[in-house]
Amino acid sequence: MNVDIEKANQKVIDKIQAGNPVLKGIGTVGENVPEVHKKMILHAGPPVEWEDMSGPTRGAVIGGLIYEGLAKDEDEARALAASGEIEFDPWHEHSGVGPMAGVATVSMPVWIVENTTEGGQAYCTFNEGLGKVLRYGAYAPDVIDHLKWMENELAPVLTETLAQLDNEINLKSIIAEALEMGDEVHNRNRAATSLFYRRITPALLETDFNVDKKKKVLEFIDSNDHFFLNLSMPAAKSMIQVAEGIEGSSILTVLARNGTETGIKIAGLGDQWFTAKAPVPEGLLFSGYDKDDACADIGDSTITETVGLGAFSMAASPAIVKFVGGSVEDAFNFTRKMYEICEDESENFKVATLDFRGAPTGVNLLKVCELDITPQINTGIAHKEPGIGQIGAGLVQAPMKCFEQALEAFAAKYA
Amino acid sequence: MNVDIEKANQKVIDKIQAGNPVLKGIGTVGENVPEVHKKMILHAGPPVEWEDMSGPTRGAVIGGLIYEGLAKDEDEARALAASGEIEFDPWHEHSGVGPMAGVATVSMPVWIVENTTEGGQAYCTFNEGLGKVLRYGAYAPDVIDHLKWMENELAPVLTETLAQLDNEINLKSIIAEALEMGDEVHNRNRAATSLFYRRITPALLETDFNVDKKKKVLEFIDSNDHFFLNLSMPAAKSMIQVAEGIEGSSILTVLARNGTETGIKIAGLGDQWFTAKAPVPEGLLFSGYDKDDACADIGDSTITETVGLGAFSMAASPAIVKFVGGSVEDAFNFTRKMYEICEDESENFKVATLDFRGAPTGVNLLKVCELDITPQINTGIAHKEPGIGQIGAGLVQAPMKCFEQALEAFAAKYA
Repeated sequence: MNVDIEKANQKVIDKIQAGNPVLKGIGTVGENVPEVHKKMILHAGPPVEWEDMSGPTRGAVIGGLIYEGLAKDEDEARALAASGEIEFDPWHEHSGVGPMAGVATVSMPVWIVENTTEGGQAYCTFNEGLGKVLRYGAYAPDVIDHLKWMENELAPVLTETLAQLDNEINLKSIIAEALEMGDEVHNRNRAATSLFYRRITPALLETDFNVDKKKKVLEFIDSNDHFFLNLSMPAAKSMIQVAEGIEGSSILTVLARNGTETGIKIAGLGDQWFTAKAPVPEGLLFSGYDKDDACADIGDSTITETVGLGAFSMAASPAIVKFVGGSVEDAFNFTRKMYEICEDESENFKVATLDFRGAPTGVNLLKVCELDITPQINTGIAHKEPGIGQIGAGLVQAPMKCFEQALEAFAAKYA
Repeated sequence: MNVDIEKANQKVIDKIQAGNPVLKGIGTVGENVPEVHKKMILHAGPPVEWEDMSGPTRGAVIGGLIYEGLAKDEDEARALAASGEIEFDPWHEHSGVGPMAGVATVSMPVWIVENTTEGGQAYCTFNEGLGKVLRYGAYAPDVIDHLKWMENELAPVLTETLAQLDNEINLKSIIAEALEMGDEVHNRNRAATSLFYRRITPALLETDFNVDKKKKVLEFIDSNDHFFLNLSMPAAKSMIQVAEGIEGSSILTVLARNGTETGIKIAGLGDQWFTAKAPVPEGLLFSGYDKDDACADIGDSTITETVGLGAFSMAASPAIVKFVGGSVEDAFNFTRKMYEICEDESENFKVATLDFRGAPTGVNLLKVCELDITPQINTGIAHKEPGIGQIGAGLVQAPMKCFEQALEAFAAKYA
């Protein structure tokens, strides 16, 4: 096929720059992704079946089946998951994203984020908080109870709160402001969470719930500086998914991991996944764990990197190194390096420490392969066994192999 | 007098490092500063009488007299202010600080900040918000009405809220966190205001006020990212005032301006002010104004600089240049330069962008004079006429002349 790659890439860049993610409300997985049924589980990363799943993904699947009442305990859940009765599918095939294991089941509540300029919606579950949580593969009864509280109390309160705000919170402006406040909105979301908290609180006060319920919701958000991650992710997804299928473009539209494999998609190559073994991130581990405990790279949260956020904006977020490791100089260097493989600089997301230079935006497959530089990632680290949870946070580069495969396919299609 | 200056300075530094400012509650000026009576007005900067006051200070005095019911309009207030019946005194003589004109009268509410390790309390009125406000010299009826709302609604709601928190909010930790979030807590307080908002909101919900009142208070705080300034100022004052009068120390304990003069105090020189004509700051002016409209440097807010915050920590706050002007490189250079005249680096307030180097802390008069480098200041800019308000924000250096005078006195006392 004879195409102008540069022109196609510019089209993608224009779409990313114009994208305007707005939080429009809350629904359930089933309401918003009708193809999901009770015996279907969405997960992070490229496709994977039960036998190949990483520990945390298995743990989250076990938890998801218990949550939906399909299994009463771990043994039943394992048997059901292995039976072939359960359908597994990546969130990315359904306009959604999930952090870490990224498991979502039909009745879980999701944020609905709409790209009001370029069209389309993207979805993500709520952030559960820290420690032993489903997304890191934990599934003990208190994990499930907490998810039920999120469904039965958190979601209704936030739904009513958003209704008070006419179901309209601009996420692009919150993200842009948060970048000036030391977030990169992937592994540091303290500012964005704070700004979101300020945005919703007066409306939350106006809802009809009693003071205890309102207070519990606010204290829950306040207890977890990563709360906004589950909004920055669908915001990024909504901005980049409009580029999927643009003929001739070599821009990365998906970068996602499931703890087993890292997978990517390229705009001009449509729905095709290119995958490679997921590397194990290195970083700061919680006391009592060492790097042999770490699961390989996992989660859809690297969707933020596809639009210039996350590790690509780490120069905006020097304090993040206390969480993910590395030095402040590394943080600056990651951003500088990512300019080399990106097609443009963001008009919306500015890195104040680099004199308000726009964040490196739009990873170009051709540059990745030419320069042998893959996207930098920062990430939470899950224990490799199911049922345990987070053990730290760190840094990793996406594996070159999936880019090499994509380049072959790109060359074959467009040579 | 024969003293070991180095040892004396170390004693001051130890006190600054150990200081622990905690918000302990709310009272009125009269309750907390008993020497203040109905016909006494506190103001920012060194001592000044009515005839020498800058426009914004005069405007704020007019407003203060109307607020206290001592005058019914501007004419009455001017006559009373000029009559000799009103006593004027710097906030700094009464363990307090006031931003810009810094005018406070007997019935105005104040924050009470206690240094729980080194002792003593410091006070500051609430931040009024932006635009036409008393601290910038405005005194129209809506300015006074707003101050009355602050006294009659804001103060009671916040008093009750703090009571729910056992009258204890650690300001040192909020300031340290805010520095990692792009604030320098003088002219950028967006993060600190956000963290404070998160801290008080659940408690505010528990108070007995109706939803409308609660919501109005939260919306007021949310509307003004400088809200926390009036907490960072008394926090800094509480940390540095314990050094006042330490024999032999050449460390700066007060840096304050009244729009006419800039004044300083030195630890080893007790209560003595050293003053010089206040320079006019340069920076970004609101549309419709030019630099001939600007009042000379004004306000006690430079107390933050005495403990390493404000312009001394501008490298932590690159986005501030959008408000005060200058370049991001300037912001980094100000911090780097201030290390040259400071005695130490903060153990508490870290500059993440400079690899978590402690903020330059404790200005040494001897270094200022030896190197001919005076403290860098960032600041709001008031219109030079009374009754108008803020016209921008900018940058300025403290005048060398007051340091020269202080050096003479220091040499005379300790030679």
